[in-house]
Amino acid sequence: MFSQTVEYALRAVCHLAIQSPKSCTTEEIAKVTKVPTAYLSKVLQGLARNGIVKSQRGIGGGISLVKTPDELTILEVVDAVDPIQRITTCPLGLKSHGENLCPLHKRVDDALAGVQEAFSKTTLAEVLAEPTTSFPLSESVPSQDVDE
Amino acid sequence: MFSQTVEYALRAVCHLAIQSPKSCTTEEIAKVTKVPTAYLSKVLQGLARNGIVKSQRGIGGGISLVKTPDELTILEVVDAVDPIQRITTCPLGLKSHGENLCPLHKRVDDALAGVQEAFSKTTLAEVLAEPTTSFPLSESVPSQDVDE
Repeated sequence: MFSQTVEYALRAVCHLAIQSPKSCTTEEIAKVTKVPTAYLSKVLQGLARNGIVKSQRGIGGGISLVKTPDELTILEVVDAVDPIQRITTCPLGLKSHGENLCPLHKRVDDALAGVQEAFSKTTLAEVLAEPTTSFPLSESVPSQDVDE
Repeated sequence: MFSQTVEYALRAVCHLAIQSPKSCTTEEIAKVTKVPTAYLSKVLQGLARNGIVKSQRGIGGGISLVKTPDELTILEVVDAVDPIQRITTCPLGLKSHGENLCPLHKRVDDALAGVQEAFSKTTLAEVLAEPTTSFPLSESVPSQDVDE
């Protein structure tokens, strides 16, 4: 139901969030996220066009997040590359329906709304802070609070 | 997020549910659902292959639902033509993750599970029984309980 582009965008942003505020090269992101470089470049262009990432040329440059991971939601990433299209008017173009959806299209739109809401409530920081034995994009879990 | 095929399948099945147990011709369904006949034929083939509709040749024949509308859920229709693909193993193929999804893929899979659950709880009969001023596939609301 989610496109390959959405999957790749989430992986890329996830890696940038882990490295944040450090910037990364496309090659580095491609390697970690296991996304073909050419495809990743297009995804990153979409993310840049929609204000999710920025790229800086020159030494010390690279790609980084525009917001901090605790301000950036999964929904913003998804909507930047492949927006969740809600049903706003009758897909059949029935005049008497208009914006007043029938129960069939209302159920479908409710499902879309549910996804939108769940994604809007989750930030990248939350995803990365969740206790887990499967850390995103990595075979190992980074050591935490080593001074404890 | 839902394909055109899903949208068309839901419309077709909705019309068949309204007419149930009567059978319909492809041309009739195409007209009411505003779906191009060639596209609709493919959608109906998919629905037949997966046991949602059956077609009978000859006089009085046509296409009809296999189940009654109160037994048929939206999820069954969606899964017959364009199944909701849950994430069951790490999309990056990370060995240490396997079936134990990381928090990123868990959130995406949770969204898919939410849609699956909502659709599994809704039958075609429920959709058609819901009080509305926008009756599915129709500019007018059918008169109900005329003997009251």
